[in-house]
Amino acid sequence: SSQRVSRFGTTVFSEFSALAQKHGAVNLGQGFPDFDGPEVVKEAARRAIHDGVNQYAMSTGARDLRVAIAEHSARFHGQAVDPDTMVTVTSGATEAILDVILGLVDPGDEVIAFEPFYDSYDANITFVGATARWVPLRPPDAAHAQWWFDWDELRAAFTPRTRLLILNTPHNPTGKVFTREELERIGALCAEHDVKVLSDEVYEHITFAPARHVRPATVPSLADRTVTVSSGGKTFSLTGWKVGWVIAPPALRDAIQRAHQFVTFATASPFQAAMAAALRLPDAYFDGLSAAYAARRERLVSGLRDAGLKAHVPEGSYFILTDISGLGFADDVAFCRHLVSEVGVAAIPPSVFYGPEHRHLGHGLARFAFCKTDAVLDEAVRRLRAKL
Amino acid sequence: SSQRVSRFGTTVFSEFSALAQKHGAVNLGQGFPDFDGPEVVKEAARRAIHDGVNQYAMSTGARDLRVAIAEHSARFHGQAVDPDTMVTVTSGATEAILDVILGLVDPGDEVIAFEPFYDSYDANITFVGATARWVPLRPPDAAHAQWWFDWDELRAAFTPRTRLLILNTPHNPTGKVFTREELERIGALCAEHDVKVLSDEVYEHITFAPARHVRPATVPSLADRTVTVSSGGKTFSLTGWKVGWVIAPPALRDAIQRAHQFVTFATASPFQAAMAAALRLPDAYFDGLSAAYAARRERLVSGLRDAGLKAHVPEGSYFILTDISGLGFADDVAFCRHLVSEVGVAAIPPSVFYGPEHRHLGHGLARFAFCKTDAVLDEAVRRLRAKL
Ligand SMILES: CSCCC(=O)C(=O)O
Ligand SMILES: CSCCC(=O)C(=O)O
Repeated sequence: SSQRVSRFGTTVFSEFSALAQKHGAVNLGQGFPDFDGPEVVKEAARRAIHDGVNQYAMSTGARDLRVAIAEHSARFHGQAVDPDTMVTVTSGATEAILDVILGLVDPGDEVIAFEPFYDSYDANITFVGATARWVPLRPPDAAHAQWWFDWDELRAAFTPRTRLLILNTPHNPTGKVFTREELERIGALCAEHDVKVLSDEVYEHITFAPARHVRPATVPSLADRTVTVSSGGKTFSLTGWKVGWVIAPPALRDAIQRAHQFVTFATASPFQAAMAAALRLPDAYFDGLSAAYAARRERLVSGLRDAGLKAHVPEGSYFILTDISGLGFADDVAFCRHLVSEVGVAAIPPSVFYGPEHRHLGHGLARFAFCKTDAVLDEAVRRLRAKL
Repeated sequence: SSQRVSRFGTTVFSEFSALAQKHGAVNLGQGFPDFDGPEVVKEAARRAIHDGVNQYAMSTGARDLRVAIAEHSARFHGQAVDPDTMVTVTSGATEAILDVILGLVDPGDEVIAFEPFYDSYDANITFVGATARWVPLRPPDAAHAQWWFDWDELRAAFTPRTRLLILNTPHNPTGKVFTREELERIGALCAEHDVKVLSDEVYEHITFAPARHVRPATVPSLADRTVTVSSGGKTFSLTGWKVGWVIAPPALRDAIQRAHQFVTFATASPFQAAMAAALRLPDAYFDGLSAAYAARRERLVSGLRDAGLKAHVPEGSYFILTDISGLGFADDVAFCRHLVSEVGVAAIPPSVFYGPEHRHLGHGLARFAFCKTDAVLDEAVRRLRAKL
């Protein structure tokens, strides 16, 4: 194997999904819903297949989907997007992130990102021979109602080699939703150091009032330098369709498209047609989604607390981090292994989402997903209360 | 943009598909059928969507598809494949090729491949910081009934830094089907130099008697070192579904899977279910496919010849190379531009499929696809006869 992959094991999602299956555990691990998105969207995909939308799409994406992405960006984020010069459709946000890094980052460059992070960031930075500079998010405390970071630590992460900063808002796994003020200050730093921004917003429609998603690309200091990555998987509860996209100023979009054409070339055509329909659903759909997740969040937060776990309440995303540091386990991996095999509940150990320097911060945490039906959430809580 | 992508323009497929549309040309450029695959396969995808196969598949691929890939390998190629340790499903063969190169090749390594090549090979080799060593295929001549290569040139391409050799059989765009004897000799060279092989076989079911596809991984000297890449796009005339796969000995599969999990993570679930059904179609389907393509090959070869073009007859794939060197055009790009705008037929200029050293070999060629209905092929020929 190449040196680049020999650093990596199996992604934690595969590992714990397999363990969940082996032990018949309730799976609150990997973030996929156990319910499907709207029938009308599924029907649109079925119709596209039937009607013969089954050959290669354009490499940049089917034009109607690019138009729908632009309309959606204007409707929900007040962002003006030109569908012909600013959008590339990808095979999920995971591919989009790789395309951005391949398209914008050279060997020897540095990339700043917050910890904990989606493990793909770390791998993709390694793939291109760049170096990651991690800035840890800190848990809520007496002085901070939400996850926060130290501005001096962020400032110190910038060097003359910094090429890219990765944002993820709403943030997986902390549930942090970056505020406009935070984004403005981050934008000022990036402008000062001439750094581009990759903003991963796959949970853009899963936020809980009073938190509100702010699209970084709409913050003036970030507008010209920000590449937005999103996907339909989480917003439409169809994670298995793997339709994502990149929105970027034309010059950045061109660089990313030049990578994309040699990564997957194009994305499944029938699902592009259906995602265009999905993005055009009425506001009521999107309101209903976040309301339903707000109810699930309450259900699992109180269930976890009833089971004696200290749960942080997320502002967005469908994940809850719990503080497991006082429970007597060696670390988060030991806790999650115990949980899946002895309690029958799968959660994700977050230490894999930290670099070596701050890995200890993850050892006291466990991540639970609440993108599950009430019965499944209740059964998980029942097991936790009975056996933890 | 990164230096790695600044070397590349837009892939020629996108460029000429756009030109074809602009000029209302008959599109014999990019290789996608203008007809869809079997209704029963489309129906299987529609059913999977309806039945709720809409969340993340396993990163290695849905198990039933991996089993179907193994069954298909045994049935058609006499290759024993373990579905659990030797298969990774990818978002098309294009992603598979990148995963193999990311998983097996280090910066500074060398990769041998034949020219003309699918342009993704060159880009992917560049992406990982490796160097390509190209060996040109030579056109049929008095001494060779088919495209051939010089064994001394191939031998000379091996160095102590060679890590991988890329085969493509049936070969796009020459239509060459590598013989067992050629594969055995290539295997001996690779064994001598401890080199792995990536075998791209997406046209495995499109060959014309007496040519027969031999799977390189079934040649003894190649078995332990060969990674097979294929996909359902061409075999089932559903290029827009983007389901490909890698078959490899377990240690190589592991390295490739470690790359894949951070490239797209997983492939569209409903199409994985449908591709499992497709791979289990009776032999009659596969026989019918090659018979239909044999008839289309005859139709376009004789039509091109009627139009005064010197057409090489392919042994496999759905492409025909024509020798345009005597027609008075500056090069293949000039010829193809003239063809699309003045004659109303889109073809692909093959010089982009050569490295700088042998690019001149492509300047005298043009590639026509015959994965089109008879009416479309006839209309292309009518235009060529009238206006070339
Ligand atoms: C491919 S896993 C994508 C991210 C996610 O779903 C998770 O964090 O669980
Ligand atoms: C993404 S283009 C794949 C190859 C092909 O179809 C072609 O060579 O035309």
